[in-house]
Amino acid sequence: MSMSKASLPAFEIGLNALSCVLDKAEAYAAGKKIDPSVLLNFRLFPDMFALTRQVQIAADQAKNGSARLAGVEPPRFEDTETTLDQVKARLAKTVAFLKTLDPSKIDASADREITFPLGPTNKGHMKGDDYLNHFVLPNFYFHLTAAYAILRHCGVDIGKRDFMGAIPIKMT
Amino acid sequence: MSMSKASLPAFEIGLNALSCVLDKAEAYAAGKKIDPSVLLNFRLFPDMFALTRQVQIAADQAKNGSARLAGVEPPRFEDTETTLDQVKARLAKTVAFLKTLDPSKIDASADREITFPLGPTNKGHMKGDDYLNHFVLPNFYFHLTAAYAILRHCGVDIGKRDFMGAIPIKMT
Repeated sequence: MSMSKASLPAFEIGLNALSCVLDKAEAYAAGKKIDPSVLLNFRLFPDMFALTRQVQIAADQAKNGSARLAGVEPPRFEDTETTLDQVKARLAKTVAFLKTLDPSKIDASADREITFPLGPTNKGHMKGDDYLNHFVLPNFYFHLTAAYAILRHCGVDIGKRDFMGAIPIKMT
Repeated sequence: MSMSKASLPAFEIGLNALSCVLDKAEAYAAGKKIDPSVLLNFRLFPDMFALTRQVQIAADQAKNGSARLAGVEPPRFEDTETTLDQVKARLAKTVAFLKTLDPSKIDASADREITFPLGPTNKGHMKGDDYLNHFVLPNFYFHLTAAYAILRHCGVDIGKRDFMGAIPIKMT
């Protein structure tokens, strides 16, 4: 077990799974003659984030969390996506960024204090392993699941396997 | 970083947070004169699980995942809850069980093959660290978030901090 194994592959599998879920959303919208932007702007309650924002935040948790653990300043990706293709490109760009990080730097971060922005003015401080286990991973899966739940609520035919993605499992 | 730190405290914090979220659901139901069983039976789509089942599965992912990593046969908790108090008791019973597990046994499980039931007839096989990172944690947070999203969709006044729970963070 290592910090890098508990982070990078989980993020990559989750973001790629979300991209496939968005493909199913696209096919569903086409079949029902729904403008895809209706799905992208859908939310489960008026003061919750819409689908596009849920995807952006899931991707940013992976990008920012991994970068901070690797001791790298996370690049800023602008939140300008308005189409499914753009949202999927955001996911692909995030996965590509994750591949640039040095796993050994992340492995050495368990005991280092990580400082990160919390809202517009505050900062959070956590030990590296706590930051991964109790902040980045819960937040990442929260927004990944929220995106999935919005599409499920809209009737897109997706199931748990679509959410889990290409995990290293052998079935008998 | 260790297998036990990546599992036990995350499950305990998450399950306790969910119990507090259910307290807010109870207060909301009382204030709106809604029968709490309406919330417990609410679902985001007809073929998705209702709230009670989401909570049961989140708890079982924590119980079964941790037990298998510790090399212990997981106890079976019957799915008989019909009230908010009973559902919260299920969470408390699960947290109490987690405390009986030996963290050093879980720490030694990263390279062991874990075999677990997948549906009624199949079995899954994964290396211990893969099982935690790519099966138990995603499933746990998926059902935790699904429970939260159902209540959020029903209008319960909860936010991200309620979902995250009592995490070890210092704010400045």
